Amino acid sequence: MKTLSKTDLQQHLLQGIEQGLHNLDIPVHPKTLYEPYSYALSVGGKRIRPMLTLLASGLCGGVIEDALPAALAGEILHNFTLVHDDIMDSAVTRRGKPSVFKKWSQNIAILSGDVMFASAYQQLQFYGQDEAYSKEEFAAMFQAFSKSIIKVCEGQALDMEFVDRKDVNHQEYIQMIAGKTAALLSGSLKMGAIAAHASPKKRKELAKLGYEMGIAFQIQDDLLDATADPEKFGKRAGGDIFEGKKTYLTILALERANDEQSLLIQRTLDADDPTEEAVTRVLDIMLDLNVIDDVAREVNQHYKKSRKLLDKFESSEYKQELENLLIFLQNRDH
Amino acid sequence: MKTLSKTDLQQHLLQGIEQGLHNLDIPVHPKTLYEPYSYALSVGGKRIRPMLTLLASGLCGGVIEDALPAALAGEILHNFTLVHDDIMDSAVTRRGKPSVFKKWSQNIAILSGDVMFASAYQQLQFYGQDEAYSKEEFAAMFQAFSKSIIKVCEGQALDMEFVDRKDVNHQEYIQMIAGKTAALLSGSLKMGAIAAHASPKKRKELAKLGYEMGIAFQIQDDLLDATADPEKFGKRAGGDIFEGKKTYLTILALERANDEQSLLIQRTLDADDPTEEAVTRVLDIMLDLNVIDDVAREVNQHYKKSRKLLDKFESSEYKQELENLLIFLQNRDH
Repeated sequence: MKTLSKTDLQQHLLQGIEQGLHNLDIPVHPKTLYEPYSYALSVGGKRIRPMLTLLASGLCGGVIEDALPAALAGEILHNFTLVHDDIMDSAVTRRGKPSVFKKWSQNIAILSGDVMFASAYQQLQFYGQDEAYSKEEFAAMFQAFSKSIIKVCEGQALDMEFVDRKDVNHQEYIQMIAGKTAALLSGSLKMGAIAAHASPKKRKELAKLGYEMGIAFQIQDDLLDATADPEKFGKRAGGDIFEGKKTYLTILALERANDEQSLLIQRTLDADDPTEEAVTRVLDIMLDLNVIDDVAREVNQHYKKSRKLLDKFESSEYKQELENLLIFLQNRDH
Repeated sequence: MKTLSKTDLQQHLLQGIEQGLHNLDIPVHPKTLYEPYSYALSVGGKRIRPMLTLLASGLCGGVIEDALPAALAGEILHNFTLVHDDIMDSAVTRRGKPSVFKKWSQNIAILSGDVMFASAYQQLQFYGQDEAYSKEEFAAMFQAFSKSIIKVCEGQALDMEFVDRKDVNHQEYIQMIAGKTAALLSGSLKMGAIAAHASPKKRKELAKLGYEMGIAFQIQDDLLDATADPEKFGKRAGGDIFEGKKTYLTILALERANDEQSLLIQRTLDADDPTEEAVTRVLDIMLDLNVIDDVAREVNQHYKKSRKLLDKFESSEYKQELENLLIFLQNRDH
């Protein structure tokens, strides 16, 4: 994806996040526990979740620095899930570098993931100690965090269950991505609101915004795969179909297909190495059944909802930044 | 180990713990996430950690019911560590039943362990919501819990590192068991004190008591292995030496041994199938070097320290129960 050129505000926030991660003071010993922890964080990534926490805090008129512990908690948690996911998916690389389990071992990846999980929680202790935060706010922070990670686990479990199932319906698919992707985006925004002492109503609105954004983003990924222009991006359309992956589009298509179409789609997905022709026919069926159009409409609806939620907040550079991000995401073509 | 015959108080508390676990309301879906969670808790165990939490709460004059969420948090956390440890140790059974990773799969064990971890934290939310608890108490609960689990991870990491090392010294060994065993016992008692609104001083004393008790118990395990009476327990003395395991005793013996003794000990530990004679010679060296006597003295010192800490509390049935437990543990002969 083409990256959004970074504004001064973004750069400033990103610097704060990197500095915060650097200042975590991760112990040196036991080496096999903490080296992988530091490594996992240093491998980078877009830092989207902590960025959302800081932006949400600014949006609600909070002191950005006070949102940093929550932002770091979200980022550590996200990286913990990647360390464990990579074991489950046997993924040997992550962001172009060896994954933790590949670089060390599976046992080390399990255990260092566990300590990252605990360490993420510990960041929230800031809100227990800082007198500016009420007990209710501290508890709300804690609860938003726990709920997010439980939903992430549920999403990952559904994803693993779906691999062996042929009858996954589109509601279940949404439930899965709601956990795997939307829950932590939603939680990150909510935590930013809490850090800014925002009202429970505003917290909820930001949580909803993150949810809508997460669902939109994830469905859009499936859509862009089916509509990719090979001349523009060097990527053929229907890559997911070639790989036999279940996507929102294949699931919707199977729900709407007649017996003949259904057989063709299923055969193509099951084939080890489907022909270009077969994949093109599946894509044509998706067009005929209005799947492509309907999903495009759905993506836009989710983005629209998230922008409407954002509209309720007062103007600020943080609001502008979030608005730009939503517009950028909605308009991306790969 | 011969079990302590259960008093009415113990039975009452155990019932409360089992009922509490039963009432956890673990979701049904996703099945691959929550079935292993329920299974891991149902397999049983002695419920020592939650029992300590409830006893500590009673000792400090608290309402036992209010300590239950903390007790359950500790028990869920303990079982989470077992689910992940069994993967790391390739342990196919746990308490006579298939371990989670054996019964389902490794991926399912990783993920359901993760959700147990989060769910354990969520139990603490009770102290965030109940108005009887101050923000400081809620934060202290949260902190005691996080610190315990981080120490447990550190202990497990050291244990794994020690397997490949020949130069482990006895201080490092203590550090390892302080994490693997003592940290959660210590945390369980401390959380009971916090649940009873005890002063920070009393919290600390109970944490220390748990630490001393955990260290004593674990060193004693190593000692009992070396001094086991085969006629009494059908278990030969020096089982750990036969298996080539590092114990507190072998480490101390190696530290004190001359070159000749050292060679003999190391060879016996390294042998795939050492002879009875070799093991007996190692045990004799341990006697000669005063290792057996010194460790026995050390065990007693740790138990003594824990009983002295207990003495500071007012008399109650809870105090009596904890005292009996410490005496029982100190006097066990297998």
